[in-house]
Amino acid sequence: MFGGSAFSPEQRAGVYEAIRKRRDARVFLPDPLPEEGLARLLHAAHHGPSVGYMQPWNFIVIRSAEVKTQIKALFLRARQVEAGDFTGERHNLYTSLKLEGIVEAPINLCVTCDPTRFGPVGLGHHFAPEAPFYSTCCAVQNLWLAARAEGIGVGWVSILEREELQRILQLPSPITPVAYLCLGYVPEFVQRPVLEEVGWAPRLPLAALVYEERWEGEQTEALRHALQHEVQTCGCQKGRANDATREKS
Amino acid sequence: MFGGSAFSPEQRAGVYEAIRKRRDARVFLPDPLPEEGLARLLHAAHHGPSVGYMQPWNFIVIRSAEVKTQIKALFLRARQVEAGDFTGERHNLYTSLKLEGIVEAPINLCVTCDPTRFGPVGLGHHFAPEAPFYSTCCAVQNLWLAARAEGIGVGWVSILEREELQRILQLPSPITPVAYLCLGYVPEFVQRPVLEEVGWAPRLPLAALVYEERWEGEQTEALRHALQHEVQTCGCQKGRANDATREKS
Repeated sequence: MFGGSAFSPEQRAGVYEAIRKRRDARVFLPDPLPEEGLARLLHAAHHGPSVGYMQPWNFIVIRSAEVKTQIKALFLRARQVEAGDFTGERHNLYTSLKLEGIVEAPINLCVTCDPTRFGPVGLGHHFAPEAPFYSTCCAVQNLWLAARAEGIGVGWVSILEREELQRILQLPSPITPVAYLCLGYVPEFVQRPVLEEVGWAPRLPLAALVYEERWEGEQTEALRHALQHEVQTCGCQKGRANDATREKS
Repeated sequence: MFGGSAFSPEQRAGVYEAIRKRRDARVFLPDPLPEEGLARLLHAAHHGPSVGYMQPWNFIVIRSAEVKTQIKALFLRARQVEAGDFTGERHNLYTSLKLEGIVEAPINLCVTCDPTRFGPVGLGHHFAPEAPFYSTCCAVQNLWLAARAEGIGVGWVSILEREELQRILQLPSPITPVAYLCLGYVPEFVQRPVLEEVGWAPRLPLAALVYEERWEGEQTEALRHALQHEVQTCGCQKGRANDATREKS
C-alpha cells in the first residue's frame, strides 16, 4: 500500500515511537554523553530541511560549569518575571514546576540561525523572512527525535532573555539564538508530558484541530473516521478540549 | 552504552534513515493517500513539542482543485517577484527550478499557529513570543519524518504571499499560516537535495558549523574527531564550504 519507498515495519515503528515517546527533559543524570553520540545528534540536526538549502544553523556546545551558571542565572531572572504573568493557583503551580536542567545536564546546546548565510537574498525568503528560523526549528526537531532513539533526553529552555543570551555566547549580529537545549541521559522518559500530568494544560483532541479546505471547514466523513481510529489505536488521546480550544463549528 | 531507554538497533536506524532520506518533494504521483495514512501523519504532527504545552497548531487539509488552483496562482505571482532578486546565471537557474507540486499533489496541508491558544499569556512566551511558531515548525518536522517512513513525499512551499494565503483559507486573526505543504506519493526520493544537485548551494561541512562554549569557540579534539568519523560513516558529506560559510577561526 505504501510503495517501495516505505520503510520496514520495524523502522517505521521506530520513527513513530520516537515521535510519541519524545519528552521535554528537565531532570538529567550526571553521566557524560559519548562524543560519537553527540556527533550523531548534530549530524541529524544538520540534515534538517532548509529554505533555499541555506543550512542557516550553527551549534554551540556548552560544557563549562561557568557558562552554564551564567545561563542558569539568566533563567532564574526570567522565570521570576514570567511568574508575574500568573496569579493564584496558576502562579503557585508555575513556581513549583522544574522547567530546566541547565546546570545538571552534561551538555547544553545553543542552536543559532544566520538568516544571511548565503548573502542578503535567498531562494524562498522574499515572502517569508521567517523561513530560515523555521528551518532551524526543523533541525532541532531532527536532533530531538534522534536523541530519543538514542535514549538521550533533550529539554528546550525558552525562558531566557535573548539579548543576554547573545551577550554570554558572544553571538555577533545577525546571528540569532533559536533554541537553547539541555542534553543528557535521564532517569526516565515520563509517560505523559509533565505539563499535562500536573494539569497545566490538557492534551487537545486532534480531531478538533483538523479542518478541510478552509478555516473551520468541516471534515469529510472518511477523515473523521480515520482520525478517530488512529486515536484509539495509539491510546494516547485522553485529554479533552477546554474553553480555549476552538471547537468545530 | 545508551541505557534501557534506547531503541532497538532497527528502530533507531529507522529514525536516522528518515532523517537522512527525507526530501523536499516537488513531483507527485496522482495516487490518492489513504485516509488512515493521512491521519497517522496528523497524529505525528500533533505530538510535536510545544511551549507551555499549548499545542498551537491547526491543520487545514486541502483537496479541492479550486483551492489548489488559487494557491498555485499565488505561487506563480510570488515566484515572478522573487525571480527579480536574482540576475544572470542565478536568475536562469531559479526560473528553471520546479519549486512546488501544489496542483499535482493529492493533498495540500496548511499548518497554522494560534499564538493565543490558551489566552494572552502562556508559560515560556514572555521572553519568546516566537516560541509558539517554533513549536509549530517542530510539529511539521514530525509529520515530514513520519511521511518519509510511510513512503509519502512532502514539499514545503514558502514562496507565497502570507496575507493572500490567509484570505483564501479564511484564517481569522491571529491565526498565522506557518507551513504550506504538498503531500503525496512520489516517483522517487532523490539521493541528494535538488538544490544541491543542480548547484544552487553546496552541502556545508558540519564540522565548520560547530563551536564550543561561545561563537567561534574552538572544538575539543574529541568532538572534532567524532564529527569527522560520523561524516565518514554516513558517507553523505560531499559538499564543501563556499565563501559564505563562516569557517572556524
